[in-house]
Amino acid sequence: MARLNVGLIGLGRLGRVYARDLSARIAQTRLTAVADTDGVLAGQLAAEFEVPQAYEDPRGLIADPDVDAVVIVSPTHTHRDLVKAALAANKPTFCEKPPAISLADATDMAAAVERTGTFLQMGFMRRFDPGYASAKRQIDEGRIGRPVVFKATSRDPFPPSLAYANPKSSGGIFIDMGIHDFDLARWFMGEIESVQAIGATLVFPELATVGDRDNVIAMLAFADGRLGVVDLTRNGVYGYDITTELLGTEGTIRVGYIRETPVLVMTPNSVAHDTVPYFMERFERAYTLQLENFAENVLRNRPPPITIRDGVEALRVAVAATRACETGERVEVRAIVPERL
Amino acid sequence: MARLNVGLIGLGRLGRVYARDLSARIAQTRLTAVADTDGVLAGQLAAEFEVPQAYEDPRGLIADPDVDAVVIVSPTHTHRDLVKAALAANKPTFCEKPPAISLADATDMAAAVERTGTFLQMGFMRRFDPGYASAKRQIDEGRIGRPVVFKATSRDPFPPSLAYANPKSSGGIFIDMGIHDFDLARWFMGEIESVQAIGATLVFPELATVGDRDNVIAMLAFADGRLGVVDLTRNGVYGYDITTELLGTEGTIRVGYIRETPVLVMTPNSVAHDTVPYFMERFERAYTLQLENFAENVLRNRPPPITIRDGVEALRVAVAATRACETGERVEVRAIVPERL
Amino acid sequence: MARLNVGLIGLGRLGRVYARDLSARIAQTRLTAVADTDGVLAGQLAAEFEVPQAYEDPRGLIADPDVDAVVIVSPTHTHRDLVKAALAANKPTFCEKPPAISLADATDMAAAVERTGTFLQMGFMRRFDPGYASAKRQIDEGRIGRPVVFKATSRDPFPPSLAYANPKSSGGIFIDMGIHDFDLARWFMGEIESVQAIGATLVFPELATVGDRDNVIAMLAFADGRLGVVDLTRNGVYGYDITTELLGTEGTIRVGYIRETPVLVMTPNSVAHDTVPYFMERFERAYTLQLENFAENVLRNRPPPITIRDGVEALRVAVAATRACETGERVEVRAIVPERL
Amino acid sequence: MARLNVGLIGLGRLGRVYARDLSARIAQTRLTAVADTDGVLAGQLAAEFEVPQAYEDPRGLIADPDVDAVVIVSPTHTHRDLVKAALAANKPTFCEKPPAISLADATDMAAAVERTGTFLQMGFMRRFDPGYASAKRQIDEGRIGRPVVFKATSRDPFPPSLAYANPKSSGGIFIDMGIHDFDLARWFMGEIESVQAIGATLVFPELATVGDRDNVIAMLAFADGRLGVVDLTRNGVYGYDITTELLGTEGTIRVGYIRETPVLVMTPNSVAHDTVPYFMERFERAYTLQLENFAENVLRNRPPPITIRDGVEALRVAVAATRACETGERVEVRAIVPERL
Repeated sequence: MARLNVGLIGLGRLGRVYARDLSARIAQTRLTAVADTDGVLAGQLAAEFEVPQAYEDPRGLIADPDVDAVVIVSPTHTHRDLVKAALAANKPTFCEKPPAISLADATDMAAAVERTGTFLQMGFMRRFDPGYASAKRQIDEGRIGRPVVFKATSRDPFPPSLAYANPKSSGGIFIDMGIHDFDLARWFMGEIESVQAIGATLVFPELATVGDRDNVIAMLAFADGRLGVVDLTRNGVYGYDITTELLGTEGTIRVGYIRETPVLVMTPNSVAHDTVPYFMERFERAYTLQLENFAENVLRNRPPPITIRDGVEALRVAVAATRACETGERVEVRAIVPERL
Repeated sequence: MARLNVGLIGLGRLGRVYARDLSARIAQTRLTAVADTDGVLAGQLAAEFEVPQAYEDPRGLIADPDVDAVVIVSPTHTHRDLVKAALAANKPTFCEKPPAISLADATDMAAAVERTGTFLQMGFMRRFDPGYASAKRQIDEGRIGRPVVFKATSRDPFPPSLAYANPKSSGGIFIDMGIHDFDLARWFMGEIESVQAIGATLVFPELATVGDRDNVIAMLAFADGRLGVVDLTRNGVYGYDITTELLGTEGTIRVGYIRETPVLVMTPNSVAHDTVPYFMERFERAYTLQLENFAENVLRNRPPPITIRDGVEALRVAVAATRACETGERVEVRAIVPERL
Repeated sequence: MARLNVGLIGLGRLGRVYARDLSARIAQTRLTAVADTDGVLAGQLAAEFEVPQAYEDPRGLIADPDVDAVVIVSPTHTHRDLVKAALAANKPTFCEKPPAISLADATDMAAAVERTGTFLQMGFMRRFDPGYASAKRQIDEGRIGRPVVFKATSRDPFPPSLAYANPKSSGGIFIDMGIHDFDLARWFMGEIESVQAIGATLVFPELATVGDRDNVIAMLAFADGRLGVVDLTRNGVYGYDITTELLGTEGTIRVGYIRETPVLVMTPNSVAHDTVPYFMERFERAYTLQLENFAENVLRNRPPPITIRDGVEALRVAVAATRACETGERVEVRAIVPERL
Repeated sequence: MARLNVGLIGLGRLGRVYARDLSARIAQTRLTAVADTDGVLAGQLAAEFEVPQAYEDPRGLIADPDVDAVVIVSPTHTHRDLVKAALAANKPTFCEKPPAISLADATDMAAAVERTGTFLQMGFMRRFDPGYASAKRQIDEGRIGRPVVFKATSRDPFPPSLAYANPKSSGGIFIDMGIHDFDLARWFMGEIESVQAIGATLVFPELATVGDRDNVIAMLAFADGRLGVVDLTRNGVYGYDITTELLGTEGTIRVGYIRETPVLVMTPNSVAHDTVPYFMERFERAYTLQLENFAENVLRNRPPPITIRDGVEALRVAVAATRACETGERVEVRAIVPERL
């Protein structure tokens, strides 16, 4: 089988996971170049994973003729320009979520996809998790009748750094964390019409200094009248806990687990197990399967299963939720339009 | 130990449970009279549980000199007048939730308590469930730090009859089902300042004909800024599922189970257990403990742990949620005042 | 419905449970007399449960014309004589497990049943536990195909008193604890042909001073070639844990749970629940259902579902296991015959 | 970091897993040669995993100067000669369990290790499973006091092929499946003194035609008097189930899980999840960690954590269990000696 020569931009925490996947775990890819604005880091990872080329300037990577496809996992605020550059170079591109912090940027990216006709796949790895994929399949097969209520809970075990949490770089908790749940909501149920939300900074007061919240809840009204609710927390101190539930007319499907090892410790009046530490443990396989899917789509000339429009629409809901949380009022999602120009 | 001579008014589904508890399970009580507007039923239960007196007119029971205390579990719309009559007769009284469907009635009952000074204990049996009681104790002991988010889910396995669901008799889903969760919210967290809610009739269209909904969600802002969310469903078709979670600064406590027997059935690619059928199985012990507590409070001259004010305030939140659901707007709980006069 | 007038002999830990059940929980019975060699205790319980008669001499109770049926839950070494006296008085009798410590006594009791033709029901309450009953029903319906391996684990949370553990009074761990599992083995699978066993005193050396063991394991060969294994421990320090598993040709059924309340406590890297304290919590309902069944059988003139022969045969296996454990050799169950005469 | 150049002999089901691990997942290794008596298969895998050399004759691989270390996962009956050849060539070697079917062969291999002084690591992957490793660590730290009873259950979801099951090639169920549990028993508890066992062919009569059993149970007496029990089945039809339990003086640790995805399906009166399909899913990470450990040990000149003696002793117990099962008698493990000169 032919392999896809991939260039990887962004070598942070998740970038390192992607480097390993692309170089060693995915049979359909070869990692031919890495780029990071920290050139030393780029050189180190290139050596570690035996990658032929390392770039400090991602545009060098995009221009590299040995790079047939580009995977972008750099900070969110850089996505727009890098995606546009990769698309302009006619290179099939994978872009990590969220597409951007501002809807204006995301819309701009969507326009670039349309203009260039180049392949762009958005990253929402949960859809590739064997659990979520199985749930989707079973629901499509009618296992629970018609799903009528969507419930999602996402809990991070600790707060992000202040630099990261700053809504100017992360977009705030609804955009940073919630976008996964809003994407799942759209995937399982369809378009969301309106959002109401509340939130507060209750545990980590320092987050308030940069304008972020640590606990928020959003209620969703889907366009066809069905219901949803998403709650997010940054103080899931016991572990990383992602649970999603579809309540149907004939049953319910729940996806989620919080146990890491198969060890039960039984001491007087207590039976205890450990917890999943964080997203890389919980979604390790999903990340790999997602990039494998990207490679196969490109190699076989298949359209992306998750498009820039999926990114734009999930972001639009997240922006609506943020606004609803700020105003205390119900926000129509379609009323959220790019704020620029 | 002296026993409390109790008269029981209302012999429906729950009334039968109370008759058994008061006559046989609770060492501190003797069931000396039962009353039901269905006099034949009253006679049958009296015979079955060896109760000396059966009344068709509950006022006869209240006047009965062998009745030292009154337990009222008749339909909600009858609570006000019966409670007032019992209080006027100076008989310590237990009243099943909700106190009334209208806030006006509930407030009227509260006024009667104040006026007469007679003992009145509201029924919110979950507080007596060993699970909820243990959760409360552990939280009070600091096990999870400070609770910051309250989450509650209540699912009935099937819809009520149309006659029952009719908001004119049940008050609608927020008042009928949700009042338990609003009471827990107040018990664990304190007063609620505002509510936003959504809801729809998605599974049982006949409920819409009487103005009720089968799925609703309410977001709560507590007076001190903390957060809550309650979701209710009438299509928990797999079983009766009541789950409550307190998310704290140092941990989380979750109360809830849905497994009835200790049997696991393991067949190819499936490990399955059964589910709790309904509230009487789930809260069997809580109901008994609640009436036992009532009897002890009366016998020992202790104040009621759950007062008419608890009933009024939980109802006020339920009414606020109903209004928020109807208007799509955020409703201040203190703005909900009796609609009458 | 007519009620059965029951006399209860033996008012220890379990006797108190039976007194409550017979006087208050079971609609088909009336507790008309209690007896205990501790006459003061008998008097106290009679007062507490409003029982008309209290006896110091159980023979007085047996002779009491207001006693229509006898429930015997006195110490095991007294079972034989009391059962024989009750049968001779032609009173339907319930006898708690084990029938006796020695096979000679148990056989003698069986002979008395045959001779008198009086109703005798053995107490093996697990068969009335909703979990075990459901497992039996599902297996009979073919849910797991043909069961081929029987596995049982019984764990007590702490050791018995030395007086109780003394094999002279309890029969030792295989007879005292294991007889429940051997009865289940026969109930689910049929007769046992041979036993091999090992055991030791590993945790509570004081038990060795009276000749008992704290941990034992027995392997069973059923008469038709199927297999079983039973392990017993007195140091199940985390809680009371009874688990039974039937491994079939098309599936497996496991009965057992160790969680008491529906509370999960989630703290950093730990999710914990509590445990079932002891047998009265685990089998509370089974005990009640068992006596209710006894009463119904007597009232309706039905044969006992658990006979003295079931008691004799389960005891025979327990004696065989004890001998196998002592000798290190395989013991044929049919080779175990009454040691006396 | 220097990488270890590894040659892999045996490209069956597990061989393919090892090829992937050695070539892609383990940073410390480079897969430089593969060998299989099916030369076409060897060529295909070499192409797929970009391995420079493929051999039909494993001796060619052993002699290859680009092979610094050898991993042997060929059929068990070939282990002895291949291990001896690799050791003779002074190449550090990893040998999959069991070392051999006959104790004579295993002893012969141990002698070769002693004679040559070459590094040999036995494969018992469970010791590298994060669950088992965590259990061992916690027990060593005293979490459950002193472990006194070892319990292990291994269930395969379906029977092996007749060719494989034939005790002449697999050694029979105690050697093929049970050796893992006997190794764990020794690892957690120490040497085993005697074994009693029973077994039968109850589900797959065809296994009887080659002399194998589908269900067996073995009781273990450890040299210091502690106890153990191992039960094995080939009809764990619901999924692959490996559970191990250490019962201690102050608590119990249980290792095992049977759920594959985080999906719960809740339908009327049923809550169900799926099961782990087979050993490669359950122990995927353990296999990788085991080979990574092998590579690190060789590169850092560390002794093997699992030696040929561990293989010999676990095999000796398995042979003792087989003999006990055949004779119905208790077998002293030290009485099991190589049957051949």
